[in-house]
Amino acid sequence: MNKPFKLAVKAILLDDHNRCLLLRRSPVCRNFVGKWEWPGGKLDDGEDFASALLREVREEASLEVEITGFGGATTFEMAAVRIVLLCMEARCAQGEVRLSEEHDEYAWASLTDLAHWDLTDHVKPFMLEYANRKGGV
Amino acid sequence: MNKPFKLAVKAILLDDHNRCLLLRRSPVCRNFVGKWEWPGGKLDDGEDFASALLREVREEASLEVEITGFGGATTFEMAAVRIVLLCMEARCAQGEVRLSEEHDEYAWASLTDLAHWDLTDHVKPFMLEYANRKGGV
Repeated sequence: MNKPFKLAVKAILLDDHNRCLLLRRSPVCRNFVGKWEWPGGKLDDGEDFASALLREVREEASLEVEITGFGGATTFEMAAVRIVLLCMEARCAQGEVRLSEEHDEYAWASLTDLAHWDLTDHVKPFMLEYANRKGGV
Repeated sequence: MNKPFKLAVKAILLDDHNRCLLLRRSPVCRNFVGKWEWPGGKLDDGEDFASALLREVREEASLEVEITGFGGATTFEMAAVRIVLLCMEARCAQGEVRLSEEHDEYAWASLTDLAHWDLTDHVKPFMLEYANRKGGV
């Protein structure tokens, strides 16, 4: 019996200096505590991926963003499901970063420097591939 | 004003000989008539991508399939929207190919031979990249 596939989204939220927003997972998270990640998460039932992306960034960083492009996609396995992860480029429309309890720190990380961050392991290969493709790493 | 992003899915339906199912777009289609493509299409409102994939393959080829893996993703622009296209590997669970009016021919095309088919232009680069990655082309 194959595990079902579920869709998740991540925002590659870029500023004018080719830096992306990273959030650090707090101790309330069930796993990957202390690892850095792009904002995002799984789609709610019946939710389209673009709405999910805007909602997740709003919940996790208190920012209103606009999706600007398609960054790429990757896949990884979790205990009960296989995740297909769509990574969308976005830019900040308004707001200042305020974190939820899910994260305890944020940073604007240069794409050229992304390899030096302690990124979530299952998405790290894609994040570095993306940064490399965009001229970083 | 940016065009909105919409999600679409394609099935890379593989048989035991590393061949994928191609469908030829019929004259009832509004565009790309005569071009070959993988089965698939846009998600209905509120539909998850896996359900959409199974529905599209059922509608277009009368086949019941099982999703087996993630093939990759690409993007292209249409008149009113920007499409993010998820391509999922699948295998046939049951059925024999019966086409809808949207297509007038089908074929099982070897991945090693995909470059010789007259594929839909906007997805062709991804299809060839996929075939190459899988040892074809």
